[in-house]
Amino acid sequence: MSIEFRPELKDLTPYSPGKPIEDVKRELGLTQVYKMASNENPLGCSPKVNAAILKVFDHLNLYPDGNATDLKVALAKKLGVKPSQVQPSSGSDEMVDQISKTFINPGDEVILADVTFPRYLTTTKMMGGNPVIVPLKNFAYDLEGMKNSITEKTKLIWLCNPNNPTGTMFSEKVLLDFLASVPKHIVVVYDEAYNEYVTNEEYPHDSISLLDKYPNILILRTFSKIYGLAALRVGYTIASEEILNNIDKIRPPFNVNAVAQAAAIAALEDDDFVKKSYEVNKEGKEYLYNCFDQMGIWYAPSEANHIFLDSGKECKEVFTELQKKGIIIRPMFKTYIRVSIGTMEENELFISSLKEIL
Amino acid sequence: MSIEFRPELKDLTPYSPGKPIEDVKRELGLTQVYKMASNENPLGCSPKVNAAILKVFDHLNLYPDGNATDLKVALAKKLGVKPSQVQPSSGSDEMVDQISKTFINPGDEVILADVTFPRYLTTTKMMGGNPVIVPLKNFAYDLEGMKNSITEKTKLIWLCNPNNPTGTMFSEKVLLDFLASVPKHIVVVYDEAYNEYVTNEEYPHDSISLLDKYPNILILRTFSKIYGLAALRVGYTIASEEILNNIDKIRPPFNVNAVAQAAAIAALEDDDFVKKSYEVNKEGKEYLYNCFDQMGIWYAPSEANHIFLDSGKECKEVFTELQKKGIIIRPMFKTYIRVSIGTMEENELFISSLKEIL
Repeated sequence: MSIEFRPELKDLTPYSPGKPIEDVKRELGLTQVYKMASNENPLGCSPKVNAAILKVFDHLNLYPDGNATDLKVALAKKLGVKPSQVQPSSGSDEMVDQISKTFINPGDEVILADVTFPRYLTTTKMMGGNPVIVPLKNFAYDLEGMKNSITEKTKLIWLCNPNNPTGTMFSEKVLLDFLASVPKHIVVVYDEAYNEYVTNEEYPHDSISLLDKYPNILILRTFSKIYGLAALRVGYTIASEEILNNIDKIRPPFNVNAVAQAAAIAALEDDDFVKKSYEVNKEGKEYLYNCFDQMGIWYAPSEANHIFLDSGKECKEVFTELQKKGIIIRPMFKTYIRVSIGTMEENELFISSLKEIL
Repeated sequence: MSIEFRPELKDLTPYSPGKPIEDVKRELGLTQVYKMASNENPLGCSPKVNAAILKVFDHLNLYPDGNATDLKVALAKKLGVKPSQVQPSSGSDEMVDQISKTFINPGDEVILADVTFPRYLTTTKMMGGNPVIVPLKNFAYDLEGMKNSITEKTKLIWLCNPNNPTGTMFSEKVLLDFLASVPKHIVVVYDEAYNEYVTNEEYPHDSISLLDKYPNILILRTFSKIYGLAALRVGYTIASEEILNNIDKIRPPFNVNAVAQAAAIAALEDDDFVKKSYEVNKEGKEYLYNCFDQMGIWYAPSEANHIFLDSGKECKEVFTELQKKGIIIRPMFKTYIRVSIGTMEENELFISSLKEIL
């Protein structure tokens, strides 16, 4: 008899990470590689961050503040909530895992979209939950379909707005109608990783105000996108004290590293950097839309920092060809690819390379 | 009906973190506070680390290498194993959580000591495991008792050598006898967070060689202790490819931040720093032993960077009194406290303060 893994793992496959940029350069003999694959901020991060990190250098030997006290206070002030309503995590990735461990029992029905952020599905399965998958409709969340999928066994619903990888959004009205129809004992996870990039006025711009009326919601945000701190791993969740106290029971005590805490506080203070990142993204989006229109390429209307498009050619082939030219994008399925909006230089290079390939 | 948390959480309480040093200073009006509470390296970390972190500054916006390729290669080289037999994690904390998610089914019996590293118990309960607790014997692991606790329901055994918080160890002979008696389908987690501090020759100094004979073992190590990188969160596990491939199925894809990866690689190259840390700890241990002997204080023989001792006075009172003098230690239970071995200056200050209090 050999060791046995949990049966829930049988149906899971490890995440297949992209190659490090340095490896791609070496293997393809390229001097410059542009990564437009992981929805990172092409401008880097706030210049205030470096100074904040340097201050941590004299105590790298000490455990981080397990309560992330200063970061919670800074976030609470910014968001207009109490520090006890905010919980930082090691990226949204870790919070998705913690939420599944907090709520999902074997056999619980868990409603989620397809395609969306893949960790909703893997952590649901990890906890033995029963995924109820509601396909996107016109590449956007089908909240009507999700509502109709609710049964007495439904435990939790994962929402991503704007959605990754399609960049599509649902409006405040649609969200409010949906929440009003969801029984209050069902947990609604509302992931807003890309909210700072939204240009559409109909987006639920004040989601935090929903917490009073809907104590069953958790709002997820991140420093990995517009704040440009993906390397450090830090996200945060806004929810009721009761929910966060329960998550705390299974949270590793020092989950957010000290560098990430310091960097996030500094990043939060730099509104100019966020504004500039928003503008560059908006401009890049309009440029790419124009080019796609001229090229006759279909794309989903994006409210995020990435565009989901139909290249018209097998996606892995497009990926390989673009990589040879020093541009990394994300192949999705069939002829669909996702490209992160870059600097104008990157966007232009992407378009000229794409034209050569197609 | 309101939202319901998993029943496994009912019996869990959140970790109660210590106060940040700055808060202690402010509240007690102290200019200097010495933290001898969390088994951190009093020398800081290798000076090579800062330069390595600075190199990450220009790509804080990019996700870390999810495969931690370079760190795995560096560790594998150092340890004489294949890169595929090593898996870094966000501290041992995260790996303990991942191991529980990989192996423990509801109702599985899981054998662990009391007292030992608390995350073994919390993550076991989190997964619905049935903890079978074997008390320490003379403040050391009772492997005979653990062996006798094995039943057909036993799934996993948590071992910590040297143990936290007692600092005590079990010998190579005891470990080999134990492993030979454990059925091969039972997972043995062997946590060596403090192994680099061991001075006793009978310790299993070559645990990695056991992997060939015992594919049911996972060996856990960390950069938080002798390498002095607790702030950054990085540990690593050595185990069979089969085990690590399964852990990979539930691992968050970017769990080890980019700063931690770079810092760990640099730290690994600085043998001199490790050697110096070992020497300072050994010297400090001998000094403290002498003082305790003179003061008539009982202590457990330590092979780690901390000493578990009987202060003879209620531990929380000792904690409070020492804190007023600017020294933070860890109150355990009854009259027992744990003190981390510091620099000689810190050790002397601790002893003189302890003398005043007792």
